[in-house]
Amino acid sequence: MKFEITILGSGSAVPTVRRNPSAQVVNINENYSLIDCAEGTQMQMRKFGISMLRIDQIYISHLHGDHYLGLPGYLQTLHLLGRTRPIQLFGPADLMKLLEEHFRITHSIPRFEIKFTAVNHQVSTKLFENKLYEVWSIPLKHKIATSGFLFREKPKLRNIIVSALKEYRIPVYWLQRIKEGSDYEQEDGTLVPNGEITLPPAPVKSYAYCSDTAYSEEIVHVIQGVNLLYHEASFLDQHADRARETMHSTAAEAAKIAALAGVKRLLLGHFSARYRDTEEFIAQAKPFFEDTLTAEDGMAIVI
Amino acid sequence: MKFEITILGSGSAVPTVRRNPSAQVVNINENYSLIDCAEGTQMQMRKFGISMLRIDQIYISHLHGDHYLGLPGYLQTLHLLGRTRPIQLFGPADLMKLLEEHFRITHSIPRFEIKFTAVNHQVSTKLFENKLYEVWSIPLKHKIATSGFLFREKPKLRNIIVSALKEYRIPVYWLQRIKEGSDYEQEDGTLVPNGEITLPPAPVKSYAYCSDTAYSEEIVHVIQGVNLLYHEASFLDQHADRARETMHSTAAEAAKIAALAGVKRLLLGHFSARYRDTEEFIAQAKPFFEDTLTAEDGMAIVI
Repeated sequence: MKFEITILGSGSAVPTVRRNPSAQVVNINENYSLIDCAEGTQMQMRKFGISMLRIDQIYISHLHGDHYLGLPGYLQTLHLLGRTRPIQLFGPADLMKLLEEHFRITHSIPRFEIKFTAVNHQVSTKLFENKLYEVWSIPLKHKIATSGFLFREKPKLRNIIVSALKEYRIPVYWLQRIKEGSDYEQEDGTLVPNGEITLPPAPVKSYAYCSDTAYSEEIVHVIQGVNLLYHEASFLDQHADRARETMHSTAAEAAKIAALAGVKRLLLGHFSARYRDTEEFIAQAKPFFEDTLTAEDGMAIVI
Repeated sequence: MKFEITILGSGSAVPTVRRNPSAQVVNINENYSLIDCAEGTQMQMRKFGISMLRIDQIYISHLHGDHYLGLPGYLQTLHLLGRTRPIQLFGPADLMKLLEEHFRITHSIPRFEIKFTAVNHQVSTKLFENKLYEVWSIPLKHKIATSGFLFREKPKLRNIIVSALKEYRIPVYWLQRIKEGSDYEQEDGTLVPNGEITLPPAPVKSYAYCSDTAYSEEIVHVIQGVNLLYHEASFLDQHADRARETMHSTAAEAAKIAALAGVKRLLLGHFSARYRDTEEFIAQAKPFFEDTLTAEDGMAIVI
């Protein structure tokens, strides 16, 4: 099952020529979600070949401009492109107020429905699920109410061994139960243990988006063992005081969280515009967590 | 005196890879103004090397998203870049309400003052002046309250002929009066006619920004004879019904206004995303007005 993240913006509040502010697209088996929507996100979608109309869920972490200011324009463009299908929106309660104020003043109410859910930013809560995956909020520690997002596939079914189908003449109506883990009861009443006729399911894949946040060990249990952790690293050690003051993280802090949570890979982003390149972010993260990457606009990562 | 327009966005509401929505910078002798501020304007400034901090006046034509949605982010960036100097903002009355709502909800009040003036969109009014030039509103005809902007240099002083300074031994305290057009009264009381000792001033230069608007002959007297007219041309003739419906103009209509107003040059812009190139805009405008150009993002035009 495809599970891919595309980075649309890897910078922090002040955009640079190379980095837009925060936005990402998560594609799970052709189900597209947008996480954060900074100014310029719709232009980045055009640039990197992401279809604007295919997004069905939007998750906004918090109401700092560099995480949501592209939303009114993106919704307007969907309207102009003829969207009629509802869109789901998850974010702080005030987000919907801001949008409604914008629609009212500009007389530009989209013709599609916006199904809004206010995110609880104090307790990890299930926000969305379909047959394939779930999305949970991750309470973060920032200057204003902020939530990260955890995307996790649902447990998959066991795989029936093809030769067993023939050997035991398993009837079709038994398949689902066996995939779910049942032993197979033959016509004469004898049981074939599930372990003999199936292989374990493919492992569940997961992705956690944690931005913006100060260093917070409270998130560790929520993001335990994820395949990929995107954790903000606005600053390097030499500006650790700035990180404290603005409730952001350093590269080393992000790596410590990755290590504590036993994640598979760490992706750093949300870099302050003051830094020209990211080598030093890697250098400061690796002593704490080896498998660390830095985000770039347009980068796609397959989990 | 330098008088230069830089196009930051030449498209209409739906952005394309090549065209951002509306924004322009007017530079008159190193006095920088921003006209409209669509989403992505601050990124375009970075891209085209315009200093964000040098802008001192911002003029917003109307409250459709593709003309103002970049403003909150741009103001936030100015704050983050350390601006303390006040900035002047001209636009519809509701614009300041929208900004205040945004500042309130996101707890992000800029540390510099925003001096706001609500623009009268029914009568052409002087909005700004300094020693060098004036800016006037241009009432436009659109779905919501909309105003264009006229930038016009003030009448310049006459140029004193260098050889006359010596010939008549003109004292310094007389210079200003002579430049303003006075005859020179010599010590013996005889008059030297101004025309003998001066040359006419350089002609006054002017620029008119008219977007968004339906065809409106009412603007002709306001923009009479300008050096450069930027007039929106969202559509071609084949979509004239769309232009009617949305209160936009076609290329031919923009050219008719240019001809009626006797302007020197016409610059078309605000092209609908449905068109791939602009040759046909030129072809449909030229029968009515010969000296027609089409805007491109990043284009600079010296008047």
